[in-house]
Amino acid sequence: MSEKVRKLYITRKEHFNAAHKLYNPNWSVEQNNEVFGKCANENWHGHNFDLFVTVKGQPDPETGFIIDLKVLKVIIQEKVIDVLDHRNINLDVPFMKGKMASIENIAVGIWNQIEPHLDKCELHCIKLVETRNNYVEYFGE
Amino acid sequence: MSEKVRKLYITRKEHFNAAHKLYNPNWSVEQNNEVFGKCANENWHGHNFDLFVTVKGQPDPETGFIIDLKVLKVIIQEKVIDVLDHRNINLDVPFMKGKMASIENIAVGIWNQIEPHLDKCELHCIKLVETRNNYVEYFGE
Amino acid sequence: MSEKVRKLYITRKEHFNAAHKLYNPNWSVEQNNEVFGKCANENWHGHNFDLFVTVKGQPDPETGFIIDLKVLKVIIQEKVIDVLDHRNINLDVPFMKGKMASIENIAVGIWNQIEPHLDKCELHCIKLVETRNNYVEYFGE
Amino acid sequence: MSEKVRKLYITRKEHFNAAHKLYNPNWSVEQNNEVFGKCANENWHGHNFDLFVTVKGQPDPETGFIIDLKVLKVIIQEKVIDVLDHRNINLDVPFMKGKMASIENIAVGIWNQIEPHLDKCELHCIKLVETRNNYVEYFGE
Amino acid sequence: MSEKVRKLYITRKEHFNAAHKLYNPNWSVEQNNEVFGKCANENWHGHNFDLFVTVKGQPDPETGFIIDLKVLKVIIQEKVIDVLDHRNINLDVPFMKGKMASIENIAVGIWNQIEPHLDKCELHCIKLVETRNNYVEYFGE
Amino acid sequence: MSEKVRKLYITRKEHFNAAHKLYNPNWSVEQNNEVFGKCANENWHGHNFDLFVTVKGQPDPETGFIIDLKVLKVIIQEKVIDVLDHRNINLDVPFMKGKMASIENIAVGIWNQIEPHLDKCELHCIKLVETRNNYVEYFGE
Repeated sequence: MSEKVRKLYITRKEHFNAAHKLYNPNWSVEQNNEVFGKCANENWHGHNFDLFVTVKGQPDPETGFIIDLKVLKVIIQEKVIDVLDHRNINLDVPFMKGKMASIENIAVGIWNQIEPHLDKCELHCIKLVETRNNYVEYFGE
Repeated sequence: MSEKVRKLYITRKEHFNAAHKLYNPNWSVEQNNEVFGKCANENWHGHNFDLFVTVKGQPDPETGFIIDLKVLKVIIQEKVIDVLDHRNINLDVPFMKGKMASIENIAVGIWNQIEPHLDKCELHCIKLVETRNNYVEYFGE
Repeated sequence: MSEKVRKLYITRKEHFNAAHKLYNPNWSVEQNNEVFGKCANENWHGHNFDLFVTVKGQPDPETGFIIDLKVLKVIIQEKVIDVLDHRNINLDVPFMKGKMASIENIAVGIWNQIEPHLDKCELHCIKLVETRNNYVEYFGE
Repeated sequence: MSEKVRKLYITRKEHFNAAHKLYNPNWSVEQNNEVFGKCANENWHGHNFDLFVTVKGQPDPETGFIIDLKVLKVIIQEKVIDVLDHRNINLDVPFMKGKMASIENIAVGIWNQIEPHLDKCELHCIKLVETRNNYVEYFGE
Repeated sequence: MSEKVRKLYITRKEHFNAAHKLYNPNWSVEQNNEVFGKCANENWHGHNFDLFVTVKGQPDPETGFIIDLKVLKVIIQEKVIDVLDHRNINLDVPFMKGKMASIENIAVGIWNQIEPHLDKCELHCIKLVETRNNYVEYFGE
Repeated sequence: MSEKVRKLYITRKEHFNAAHKLYNPNWSVEQNNEVFGKCANENWHGHNFDLFVTVKGQPDPETGFIIDLKVLKVIIQEKVIDVLDHRNINLDVPFMKGKMASIENIAVGIWNQIEPHLDKCELHCIKLVETRNNYVEYFGE
């Protein structure tokens, strides 16, 4: 077959462990407990988060790579893992200041941390797994 | 950055254990055995089904949530798990009456059970995993 | 180091899908429902069972093998998987006749199916995983 | 075969999400940081803990059960999960008061919470998985 | 509801174990080592590859199937697994001749092996998992 | 309770990707193919190996640790992963010289690499997972 230009998606998985709680500072303790239940526990709880970063692009003819995963790994490490791992998402993470620490908002924050640093390929999806029973996906829309 | 309205996808995973068999009542036993093989075993077989329900929407500014997962969990429990778990899909499940008990048809049936009960967000995908080697996805098309 | 004779354990994982129910024929329906709950559902339910067979022995100096896994695979296939896969454990499985179809009893039955066929090594453990939340181990005691 | 009395092991898996940190109150901040690294982060971090509780006993001839898993589930829920889930292990958990919040010590604490409540079977092992890369096992020795 | 014609996606997972290395024959050893690092190891390295083949179509009213998974399994086995399993991807695989052995290129090669053999349904995605930390997806674009 | 001295087991999981083949240089090609089948493929094949290193000891009263996992990680990295990862086990690994590259022998080799470097705790088990269907355990016997 002729050498059609092809588009593929490559995903790198990383993980981090962090504490957070869900509470809205504009609400009473009672309202927070009613809406967020045990996730509002005053003294925090935490998770092992699995992060999947998916990038879209064309394989380079010289390397066969959409992106060098060693490069992607460094971007994720420096912009995301170093900022979130073994941290308190509500207190320690600059890009979450003033936002609810829901996985939805964390996923959007991670997108914004990574997207400006990609070259010759596009960020396609941030998938953030909070527990074995739930995860969020953000496609930049 | 200005507060762009964003669209995200959140997935809740549940599971149920059920018996079924694959057979077409309009066919002979021989034809059923030929087409469905050991899946046609007269006395049933069964699976641990993993169910992934994905919902699409915008995070609520007050909660950070697309949907409260506690609410989604109750919908899935009442409309799907209570109906399918520890049941015989061919004999015990009203929404499968008169249909082949293939995972394709079970996935469509689960979509129809959940879709009318979502509020302020849309059902995006039903993913139903039958064994570690196969699964079906239905996007409502 | 001098060539000490060493003892190692090797495990082969297989799986099968089967239907069963828990009920004691000496009891009333009510008593069965009370003790076994939804596991007593008259029309059966089922599982994807994961089976881990562990064998103990000394590596053969010519092959490096405790047992040739291709041989172990055939034993498990013929004595266990062919008998249990896509079957009803209560109705279709000779070695479970007259026994409660609990995973405890299935594990002991599997031990008895495999143990006589091993040569130059010993059966060490049958581990049978019924759901992602429970499993049984039997060491022949 | 004659009905030999057999001994088996059954395991129930549960999980909880909690915050903790590693620090020794008798040490300086510097010493804590040196020994515990990022695990000493002042504002906590957290994990999804997977807990495997293994019990040893003989199947009951009437039920085929070593222990009714519904009973074991309730014991684990009330004595362990309700106490640890969505909590801060250092601050909120009575049985960890005055102890380093290492998984070793948490596992021993969980053993002590469950062991007195088992009847007709013995507690065999507490396995506590902290991340996908490390876990602890305690056999009561 | 009236019998709307529905479109679903079904996925079959298979796996193979193979050796490969990353190196560009037009480059010096130094350049290969610089770009590909340990993946350029002269004497090869290898992986357990997980392959997910997703097919799109409409359930057949007689069988409930988009495609008979037994048929899909045979296609994957003959066209992909028999060619790649326990092989050296650089040396032994005809469809990889003259191409960099990156997972991007392997995924495209697998697409081309399977796509011509599907009947009444379309190939939707080839997902190839190389390690627990990275995978590629190709949708035929 | 009084501070009983307790014994626990802690496990660290690491992984490496390597090529190998099974062949006995004292045998003909035919005999190798007959005994080892596709594992004897001349041009190698490979795996993602998961390695579980289990250590036994008493928690230190000051740290709560049996062993500092950061220390154990460095030992495993330097003595095992650096030697095996992205290597050819038959050609590149000093401790496998002259031995069949079976997982049994690799596991014993890993034990010998780690055991002399542990302090205040004992090596208990090397578990080496070659595929999702088989693994070996070695307890130093």
